[in-house]
Amino acid sequence: MDQAEDESLRPAADKSDPLTSFDEYLHAAIDEFALPPSLSQAIKYSLLAPGKRLRPLLCIHCCRVSGGRDEWALPAAAALELIHTFSLVHDDLPALDNDDLRRGRPTLHRKTSESMAILAGDAMMSAAFRHLMLRAPGSTAGVLVAELSEATTEMIAGQVYDTLGGLPNELNPLEQLIEIHSRKTGALIRAACRMGAISAGGAGRTKHEQHREFEAITEFADSIGIAFQVVDDILDVTQDSSQLGKTAGKDTLQGKLTYPSVLGLEATRREVRRLHDEAVHSLRVFGPAADALRELADLICTRTR
Amino acid sequence: MDQAEDESLRPAADKSDPLTSFDEYLHAAIDEFALPPSLSQAIKYSLLAPGKRLRPLLCIHCCRVSGGRDEWALPAAAALELIHTFSLVHDDLPALDNDDLRRGRPTLHRKTSESMAILAGDAMMSAAFRHLMLRAPGSTAGVLVAELSEATTEMIAGQVYDTLGGLPNELNPLEQLIEIHSRKTGALIRAACRMGAISAGGAGRTKHEQHREFEAITEFADSIGIAFQVVDDILDVTQDSSQLGKTAGKDTLQGKLTYPSVLGLEATRREVRRLHDEAVHSLRVFGPAADALRELADLICTRTR
Repeated sequence: MDQAEDESLRPAADKSDPLTSFDEYLHAAIDEFALPPSLSQAIKYSLLAPGKRLRPLLCIHCCRVSGGRDEWALPAAAALELIHTFSLVHDDLPALDNDDLRRGRPTLHRKTSESMAILAGDAMMSAAFRHLMLRAPGSTAGVLVAELSEATTEMIAGQVYDTLGGLPNELNPLEQLIEIHSRKTGALIRAACRMGAISAGGAGRTKHEQHREFEAITEFADSIGIAFQVVDDILDVTQDSSQLGKTAGKDTLQGKLTYPSVLGLEATRREVRRLHDEAVHSLRVFGPAADALRELADLICTRTR
Repeated sequence: MDQAEDESLRPAADKSDPLTSFDEYLHAAIDEFALPPSLSQAIKYSLLAPGKRLRPLLCIHCCRVSGGRDEWALPAAAALELIHTFSLVHDDLPALDNDDLRRGRPTLHRKTSESMAILAGDAMMSAAFRHLMLRAPGSTAGVLVAELSEATTEMIAGQVYDTLGGLPNELNPLEQLIEIHSRKTGALIRAACRMGAISAGGAGRTKHEQHREFEAITEFADSIGIAFQVVDDILDVTQDSSQLGKTAGKDTLQGKLTYPSVLGLEATRREVRRLHDEAVHSLRVFGPAADALRELADLICTRTR
């Protein structure tokens, strides 16, 4: 193909930190809603806790490689972090994972109350869509809502399968794992990458280039999304809670299907490398401009928390 | 003003039942998502239980008086009923109102499990936005999402004030009630009416007429929204559970601020009549075309369940 040519035409990756003022942006986004002070505090407690900010990072970097500026991706990045945090808060509830520790702090229902955690989670979800409509450029807002609402619905469906079961019996354990995790974790990571590309608004690209790049970003996202979850499963059995900032060994304790329990630890590690290579391969269309995304893929696959 | 002239130009109200196939539409909307069967069942159990369908009714009738056809309002009506039902399911949870009975049946967490009720509520919210993006005409979808996400956030804020308190001390009890209920109940009823008007897409109206009618519908909605909640408060003290299809006497038991407890029963009934007249007065711009909305206002103010 015309890869070499592409690479020479593309700029090198922008190495500046895309998250410099992201927490301030999130803070301001919440304040804009004039919520009850207790609700606003509860949301900020969970949302602004030290986290990896993986979805915002992916979103902003995918916006960059698609020709957009960081600030164009901020509304989508904030909406993604709101949806992700809502899902953590509800998943931690006593009726679901019943977890005490998240991002190295007491979970929201432990810090406040179960009722507040339910309502704060609900508010984060509606706030995500509200924020997109308020702050994303008019031409992209609708497409972003479509992506995010689809991914959110998929994520909840994945959580239902993971927590309550109900997958078709004819699927083997590995197929079941893929079915659960492509929804529970993969859907939102896919949305993060695609929403970044959408936020770039096709800047300086022909329709054809836009389409080809969007396909590449989607392929990258699908590989990296599964890789992220596979690594999560590895960390759950190899790390302790203080390193993870959340309860370790939980999957085994709850008898959940995991990659190490199905494939064994060594084959699981090979699977991470395979998915990593697949993800990086998807990025070839961008040339050096995607170096930051490649580094992010490395980080996702080698992280220890 | 030019009221008389307006009335002669407007058609009489369409008296056909706007809900003939609404439940089928809701059913199909859920099936479209290909959710886990258990989740789909849980959503349908709550969503398709016999209810007043007040918000869909308001939405479709406001679409009609704004010159639209019933089917144009169906995506908005379905999204509204999804959001309303999500809020009932989460409000009924043990950590919130801890209720056993809803729409004359066991609440969802009693019928299934607390975890399923939390996840089904979450899924109904994201499905509402997804459905709007899938089914509402492209030109209105964004505006509808903006209306609905704002109302949903307000509704949750109202629930926080109602359940967990935190209203400014300087408000007197009546001001506190209005603050709670304009958010908890009013916001979604307002959205129902406005989303109906938006769904009509300005059919056959000048910009000026559209603006004037939209203002009228918003005024109508604000009066009827508060009236609905005031009547709810009256029914909570005057009816029994079997008539209501939900637990009666709950507000008093939980020591909640209600209109009868602040104003007394007689003054509360006068307040309903005042709000009713205010609502009907707002509709004068539509002439006889709004007769169905007037009847709906009558029903809301005289209902016994």
